[in-house]
Formats: sequence, C-alpha cells, structure tokens
Amino acid sequence: MKIENPNPIEWRFSERAQQLQSSFIREILKITQRPEIISFAGGLPSPATFPVERMKQAYDTVLTSAGKVALQYGPTDGFPPLREWIANQLSQNGAKIVPEQILMTSGSQQALDLLGKVLIDEGSRVLVETPSYLGALQAFSVYRPEFKSVQTDDHGLVPKSIDAVAEGARLLYSLPNFQNPTGRSLSVERRVELVETCARLGLPLIEDDPYGALSYKGEPMPKMVAMNPDGVIYMGSFSKVLTPGIRLGYVCAPLPLVRRLELAKQAADLHTAQLTQMVVHDVVKDGFLDQHIPTIRELYGNQCQAMLDALTEHFPSEAHWTRPEGGMFIWVTLPKQINAMTLLDQAIAAKVAFVPGAPFYANEAETNTLRLSFVTVPPERIREGIAILGQLIKAML
Amino acid sequence: MKIENPNPIEWRFSERAQQLQSSFIREILKITQRPEIISFAGGLPSPATFPVERMKQAYDTVLTSAGKVALQYGPTDGFPPLREWIANQLSQNGAKIVPEQILMTSGSQQALDLLGKVLIDEGSRVLVETPSYLGALQAFSVYRPEFKSVQTDDHGLVPKSIDAVAEGARLLYSLPNFQNPTGRSLSVERRVELVETCARLGLPLIEDDPYGALSYKGEPMPKMVAMNPDGVIYMGSFSKVLTPGIRLGYVCAPLPLVRRLELAKQAADLHTAQLTQMVVHDVVKDGFLDQHIPTIRELYGNQCQAMLDALTEHFPSEAHWTRPEGGMFIWVTLPKQINAMTLLDQAIAAKVAFVPGAPFYANEAETNTLRLSFVTVPPERIREGIAILGQLIKAML
Repeated sequence: MKIENPNPIEWRFSERAQQLQSSFIREILKITQRPEIISFAGGLPSPATFPVERMKQAYDTVLTSAGKVALQYGPTDGFPPLREWIANQLSQNGAKIVPEQILMTSGSQQALDLLGKVLIDEGSRVLVETPSYLGALQAFSVYRPEFKSVQTDDHGLVPKSIDAVAEGARLLYSLPNFQNPTGRSLSVERRVELVETCARLGLPLIEDDPYGALSYKGEPMPKMVAMNPDGVIYMGSFSKVLTPGIRLGYVCAPLPLVRRLELAKQAADLHTAQLTQMVVHDVVKDGFLDQHIPTIRELYGNQCQAMLDALTEHFPSEAHWTRPEGGMFIWVTLPKQINAMTLLDQAIAAKVAFVPGAPFYANEAETNTLRLSFVTVPPERIREGIAILGQLIKAML
Repeated sequence: MKIENPNPIEWRFSERAQQLQSSFIREILKITQRPEIISFAGGLPSPATFPVERMKQAYDTVLTSAGKVALQYGPTDGFPPLREWIANQLSQNGAKIVPEQILMTSGSQQALDLLGKVLIDEGSRVLVETPSYLGALQAFSVYRPEFKSVQTDDHGLVPKSIDAVAEGARLLYSLPNFQNPTGRSLSVERRVELVETCARLGLPLIEDDPYGALSYKGEPMPKMVAMNPDGVIYMGSFSKVLTPGIRLGYVCAPLPLVRRLELAKQAADLHTAQLTQMVVHDVVKDGFLDQHIPTIRELYGNQCQAMLDALTEHFPSEAHWTRPEGGMFIWVTLPKQINAMTLLDQAIAAKVAFVPGAPFYANEAETNTLRLSFVTVPPERIREGIAILGQLIKAML
C-alpha cells in the first residue's frame, strides 16, 4: 500500500510563514533548563505559587456537577458566568464594562494573534514601546506590519512622542504595569496622557496587563480601559495569578471590534475549552484570588528585593537597572561597549543565564541591555548568580 | 478619571477580517437549541458518549502526581508521551511516523488555521471537495485563497478530476472517512489513486480524519498518510472519540512543514494546555479507546439505521440520500426545484431543524441539498422528525 513518491514536494510556504522565527527566549530556555544553571532567563511564573489542590478540587466539582456540559463544545465567546465575573472586575472607577465586551482566549497570546489578524494588513503601521514584549512582536509580525517604536524613558512610554509616529497607525501596543521586559510601570499622569492622546488621534490603544495584580507595594494602578472603554482594548490572563499551563486569557474590546475578534476566533479554534473556563470560574468566583495573590506578591517581592540588593553589591557603578514594584522582571543597562550576547556566552559557561535585551526591540536594538527574572530562583541562588554576572561584567570593562 | 473621547474610533479592519463570516451552522444552532425542537442540525457528538468518570479520574491522577508540571507552561509541539502514542497509532501498514512529525493543536480547527496561515497566500489556489467541510472553508477563507472545487460523485472525491484544476494549487483538502457533510467514504482504490495523483503533481494532500474510528461496520479504512508520509498531512482529533470540549487535536506532517506549523503555533497561542494533554494521555495510554469507541459506534450506528429506515418510509421517491457506514451525517439531495433554505423555514415552524447544504460548497452551491445529523436524537424522535420533513417535502413537490 506504500506509494512511491515520484515528485517529492517542494514546500512552498506563504509569505507570512517566511516571517516566522522561533522566540529567542524559548531557544535560550532549552539550553538553560539544566538544573546546575542558575537561570534568570525564564518568563515562567514560579510553580510554587500554583494552587494545585484548589484546582484539583474545582476539576472534581465541575466534572461531578456538570461533566457533560463541561466536556461538550461551547460558545466561541466563552463561558457566560466567567465573562460576567471578568466584566465586573474591570468595571472600576465608574466605568461600565459589559460581558458582551469579553472574549475568552486560549491564553492572552491568542488575543495578540487575533488582534493582529483583525487589525493589521501588510505594511500597516503598528506602534510599540522601546523595548516591547517579545510575544507581541512575534504575534503581530506574522501579519507583516511596519513597526514604529514609541520613545520610552525611565518612567516608561512617553505619550508626547506618539504624535510624531502616529500617522496612519492601526494600533498602539502598551504594557503599562511592570512591563515585560523592563519591569517599569506608567504613572497615573502618563496613563491619562496616553489615553487622551490616543483618543484625540482616534488610535486604538492596547493595554496588555498580565502582571497588574502582582504589585508588591500598595494597590494596583488604575486601568486605562476604565478611563476610555470606547478606545482601549484590554488584555488579561490567568497565567500569572493562577496557572499558565491551562492557557486561559481574555480580551475586553469595544463591541464592533470584539465581534470581529470572535469571528476570527471561531475560524481559528472554535472556542476555548469549556471545562477550563468552568473550573477557573469555580476557583475565582468566591474571592479565592484575594487570598491567593498576596502569597505570590510576597514570594516575588522578597526575591525581587534579594536581586536588587545583590545588584547593588556586585554590579559595577557604570551599570543601571530598574527597581520594579511588582511583576517578574528587572532590566539592566550596561555600559555601551558591553554586548549582552557576548556576556551571555560567558555567563552560560559560568552556569548563569539571562535573556539579552536585543530581541525585545522592534527596530534598532540596544545591545547593552538584559532582562533578569527573579521569580523562580531562591534568594541565596539569586545572590550567587548575580555575583557571578557582576564579576564577568567587571572583567569586561 | 474617565476621559472624554473627542474622536470616536472609526474601526479599520484588515482586509482579511472583512472575509470573516459567522458559521451558518453556529447561527442555526442558536435557534435550534430549544428543547421542543427535533434538531438534526448539530455537528456535536452525543454527550451520552462522554466518559466523564474516566476523565475525572484522570484529572485527579495527573494533578496529584504531577500538578506543578501540568499547570506550568509547556513545549509548543506538545506533551512528548502523547505525541509518541499518536505517532505509534499512525504507523500502520509498514509506514513509520515519528513523534517529531506530530504537533498538538487546540482542536483540529486550529490545525486548519495553522495550515492556512503557513501555506496560503492571497489568491493561492486551494482544492476542496464538492461539498466540503464548512470549518475548513471558514479557516482557509481568512487567508483569501481562490477555492477550486474538485469533482465528487456518489463515491466521494473523483481523483481523475484533479489534474484539470491542479495548476499552481497549494494544497488539496480532503475528508476521506464519513465526510462532513455527506457521510461518504473513499474506497481503498480511490485513496490509492488520490495519493498517487497528488504525489505525481507534487501537491500537498490534507487528510482530515475526525470520524475515521467511528466505523459501524468492519475495520477502519487504511490511512492515506501511511501510503505516503512525505506527501500527506494528516489531521486527527479527540473530539469525536473522547470529548470535544477539551479542545485537543493534532496534525501529522512532513518535517519541513511541521516545523513551520510549530512556529506559527508559538506565535498564535504558545502551546496547547499541558494538563489537557497529560490527562488525555493518561486516559488513552492503556487502551481505553479500544473499549470505549465500540460503544459510540453502537449508539450512532443504531440511530443512523433508524434515520435511514425513516427516510425510506417517509421521504418521496424523488429524494436521494447517502448511506453512511460510520460518522455522524446523512446527506440528502432533493428534487432540483426544492430550495433547502425554504424548507428549513417551514421545518423550524414545524419544530424540526437541519442544515441546508449550500454553505458547504466553496463555489457554486446545490441548493437542493441538506445535512442531517442523527447522533444526538433518540430513534423515536428521529422517526417523528423525519416524518415531518417528509410531509413538508411532499407538499412542496
């Protein structure tokens, strides 16, 4: 029954498929997962924070009480009670978000893909921060936009710099809380200015917010979507506050857009698993996150502080770094003559890993930057790893 | 903090987003989910077949033994033991499929989307059966191909008709077992001829196989991927043999293609839920499906027979229909003067629903066709519903 193939296929890929590149981070992770390596390279949350027992209980509850429904096909937009819960969470400061604005997605990465699919034509201008989240650059790249970098400073995105690059732009992508990769957060004043600027320009503003709840000090910052629900597209995720492996995120968008996103999702994967949504609703509906999130904040906050202390002790005075008040990352800027890729080679030889900053830039990269994650490494290993990096950097100066 | 919006957004969608249409079937389903309606419209498997207890046990087992791993981010290509299990299942008749060829997807709908993304440029020629699976037409449409319909007869796709439309084609999409919507299966001879034709033309052949295991009589037919693993792209799913709500499917493709699909998946949603894959592996690894699938076959086979008997009794002699030996659907061809859309309006008024055939055609539609699903309706309701349809059709003649 085996058929000989007289004419082997010469694979002809679409033009967009030729844009596809593997995430540099995922490639590094393959190298750095060996246990002897102290890895600050990960973007993964700490498994120590996963509420395994609560999840197990919820799977049991949902499968016992509604197994046949949970295991059947479901609506493309998502499980209604969970969408309602999310809409209520987002209805802050007098803003009213309705459940019809919520589309459940298979992780918030899928929301990025759907937004790219629905808003970007080949050559469309897309505005991003400098640097920006790599997964967003990767998702949008498939649709072949022209990226324009919006200026940032030590306080994050500079709203005044938008006008200069806004002409014809289809969207501005921002990550205002404890940004990946820099750990920076936008001040309330900048948020207002950013929302006002985009509103004035009629420019859709994406507010990607996976880390907003992970504030070590004080209350979370106000959400931009609540300032202008007609102009801001909000993306949320259960990956960092619950667990990432279940792949559950959502997008909240103005109605004309969310209906398009829903159609795109229908064609892309029909819907996100009902069971997953019902389980997460069972977990979050009675306030579980109010007790759970503080335990994540405490763990990450302590490790962040350990890293900041170690940086002060071991890094040369010519280096600078951010001092995040939440999230998972610290961003280091080294003297210009040091290339973080070269440093990475030496670091891996010394059994320490991190992610060089260059892949996070849509346009011209600053090659003397690097991203450090502190969330999966205990304090003593953080001190050890930072000491090694500090020695290597000093030797390069 | 609420910001007035001086310039409401005029949403500008991408050209591809303007192709997006809601699936006609999903629209009909909204109307026909009322319990008083006898619905032959669904494409959903019967929840009576869902192994809820076995799934519950597997969630408990996996979360107990490996909860932190199951709830963490995972590899884009999928959970290795499940990919290995699938590769072994597909290695039939002397063909050797390796796990590296398997990419796990969020339902097989996602495989369609990824294949479209990676293989179709605007205007690319894509060959489909007449009629074809609506979800595939919908997924590919996003990438704006030129569909060319390949001729079919009572025995399914006619391989000899391919050459006439093959020039420049990027792929041929086929559903050889108990096709959705017609219920037809390709004979072994036609499979060989189809694989040989595509191999001769260097044309990638997609073998979409959600229903292959649901054969009421005798053994499943040989898979085309085993005849030519270098030229056939196989798509499988756990939706019809286990449960659809977990959204788990896979694609098996030659290595150059599967690596591109993996990159596209990384950008689209990073990976499919680890927990889901580990649970399904736990369920299938010791042969559970060997006992479970026969129970689905028996249920569907009895209901299929009940519908075939009722059609013979109640439909006019001018109507013709397929006699499936597996799967979920019967395809009816009415006399040319009857428009199935008109019939549907009358049928819904009489509390019976089905799906008109027209949306399943990529090009010119035969409006006198309709699809009937028998899997979620008990035999006595099948007889009642078919009797009503038969009366309406006879009155229209």
